[in-house]
Amino acid sequence: MTFAATRWSSIADDRRAAVEPIKPLAVAMGDPAGVGPEITAKAWKARELHSLAPFFAVGDARAIAAAGNWPVVRIYDPEEAAGIFPTALPVISVADSGEIVPGVPDVDGARCALQSLELAVGLALAGAAGGLVTGPVSKAQLYGIGFTHPGQTEFVAERCGISGENAVMMLAGPTLRVVPITVHVALADVPGLLSTELIVAKARVTARGLLRNFGIEKPRLAFAGLNPHAGESGAIGREEIDVIVPAIAQLREEGIDAVGPFAADGMFHARARAGYDVAMCLYHDQALIPIKTLHFDDGVNITLGLPIVRTSPDHGTAFGIAGTDQANPGAMIAAIRMAASAAQRRAELAAADTP
Amino acid sequence: MTFAATRWSSIADDRRAAVEPIKPLAVAMGDPAGVGPEITAKAWKARELHSLAPFFAVGDARAIAAAGNWPVVRIYDPEEAAGIFPTALPVISVADSGEIVPGVPDVDGARCALQSLELAVGLALAGAAGGLVTGPVSKAQLYGIGFTHPGQTEFVAERCGISGENAVMMLAGPTLRVVPITVHVALADVPGLLSTELIVAKARVTARGLLRNFGIEKPRLAFAGLNPHAGESGAIGREEIDVIVPAIAQLREEGIDAVGPFAADGMFHARARAGYDVAMCLYHDQALIPIKTLHFDDGVNITLGLPIVRTSPDHGTAFGIAGTDQANPGAMIAAIRMAASAAQRRAELAAADTP
Repeated sequence: MTFAATRWSSIADDRRAAVEPIKPLAVAMGDPAGVGPEITAKAWKARELHSLAPFFAVGDARAIAAAGNWPVVRIYDPEEAAGIFPTALPVISVADSGEIVPGVPDVDGARCALQSLELAVGLALAGAAGGLVTGPVSKAQLYGIGFTHPGQTEFVAERCGISGENAVMMLAGPTLRVVPITVHVALADVPGLLSTELIVAKARVTARGLLRNFGIEKPRLAFAGLNPHAGESGAIGREEIDVIVPAIAQLREEGIDAVGPFAADGMFHARARAGYDVAMCLYHDQALIPIKTLHFDDGVNITLGLPIVRTSPDHGTAFGIAGTDQANPGAMIAAIRMAASAAQRRAELAAADTP
Repeated sequence: MTFAATRWSSIADDRRAAVEPIKPLAVAMGDPAGVGPEITAKAWKARELHSLAPFFAVGDARAIAAAGNWPVVRIYDPEEAAGIFPTALPVISVADSGEIVPGVPDVDGARCALQSLELAVGLALAGAAGGLVTGPVSKAQLYGIGFTHPGQTEFVAERCGISGENAVMMLAGPTLRVVPITVHVALADVPGLLSTELIVAKARVTARGLLRNFGIEKPRLAFAGLNPHAGESGAIGREEIDVIVPAIAQLREEGIDAVGPFAADGMFHARARAGYDVAMCLYHDQALIPIKTLHFDDGVNITLGLPIVRTSPDHGTAFGIAGTDQANPGAMIAAIRMAASAAQRRAELAAADTP
């Protein structure tokens, strides 16, 4: 089951403007000691099988070349990427990251990852890249070089001039999309962080993001309850009544197709998933458990609310298998495909809005 | 993927004693206006296809007869059930529940459901039934007649003389078993309710229950963390360090194969599930989301820690489709099969322990 096929048709063909092909995507390679270099190169090798749009890597060219047997060509301008892509993986190499030992992260690698990210964001913001795909980084190593953001999403949002409240992390797989309204906070802090305002803000960004990136004109947002059985009318928790129901009412007044709150445990089987475009969840594991249960190997993290397209494979650096040629590039391939289609969709919408 | 096939072999055949066939199971029919009567009768119709052990229903015989086209025979003693089962569904009828309108619950129906449950528990405790399977009830209706337990599980535990802490609700499907350590409480109350003592108590019952009911001699218990990424070494929540890790350490000292805590979102994809026999979760949705995502139509609720076998289909009364012949009996069939195999396993263990 995939809802992409049916939902893509929701913007009528006559409203889809003919546009230029999107510019090559920038793939920030992530930590050079992790699986980022390998999955980036493996995605390039699978470019024809998956009809991947052109992309170039940003990172340590040696790490990519060392990760396997594939042609790598250093480029100095994204404009060169499209011509090279059919025969070799184009790489914009950032400053030397020192000796790289796969599976053994260090601060040099973290600096390389951060520089790659910074450069790739800049190229996407400048319009030199069609969108941004970010490989896995080690937060522990990044913290060691003074990185203070909870993750790459917040860093990218800040570089784009977008506040945290207005950037939304969505996880998307072939049969499910989820948004965690709170993310990297202790479970005990979740009830206190939830407010009608926060839920409404995140939902607005989500609804607009589903239109801009996925072409869903009237997205259906299904809200989970916070408590077991969505609180049983207040018998086991009042957040549904006090916070979530008012948020849904306000969103509906604004014309957004918001429904719920539903008992979270009944929202994620196949028949239930067919009834909405995104499950709005209240905390990290409520969203991440179902998406990773269903789409562990092909889940994509996409940031909504940014001026640029940004996706990421929904997995970590996997230091344990780095350098052993065992990394599955499925999620990276899915992230590249989703970034390309989102960029294409945005270009079409922009063209359609231009008289 | 099913782990039942591999784990069943964990008790060596030479330790499996030859025992008498188990006595027929008692199926308490649940609310007569819900789908309980229909799924009970449909399970009976599928008795040969699924090689179901003999069972008899306890409830309103008219409701079962009215739910479809199947032979129903009233019995007055469980001893009669086995002889009738091949040709008709045996039913022990409880007091008249008044006029039954499928989909329209009332207090008469709730009284009928409670009497059915009470009688079926009694028959199982007395050894007249081989085990207990309970159909879905309406808690709202039961509360209306003075029922004060959070659910049937707690009622059955009390009738068995077992404290709530020592009865464990486990949800089991063909590829996953989960235990929620706290159940029907508001999410905000979960962190305060968790203690090392509670976790250890529930895990002990779980480990013993997996042996007694599933024949798993050395069950592997995998613990979820409470916080995102299991707290990231205390960076986002300290319950892992303060409460869960000490519980796991204590369990390991007692010889129980307990591991974790793991980031909950990474525990439920197929490869992860192959690594344990039960996922020990800390709250309702952490356990119920993955099991219902994977096994919405064939999940079974089994109570561990009781002197009797008790299972239940893991779904509600479905008043919306009651009386329309649309109910899927899959979970009821799975509950009957699990009760029969658990009863058989207990009988074998008891026989093996008898010199």
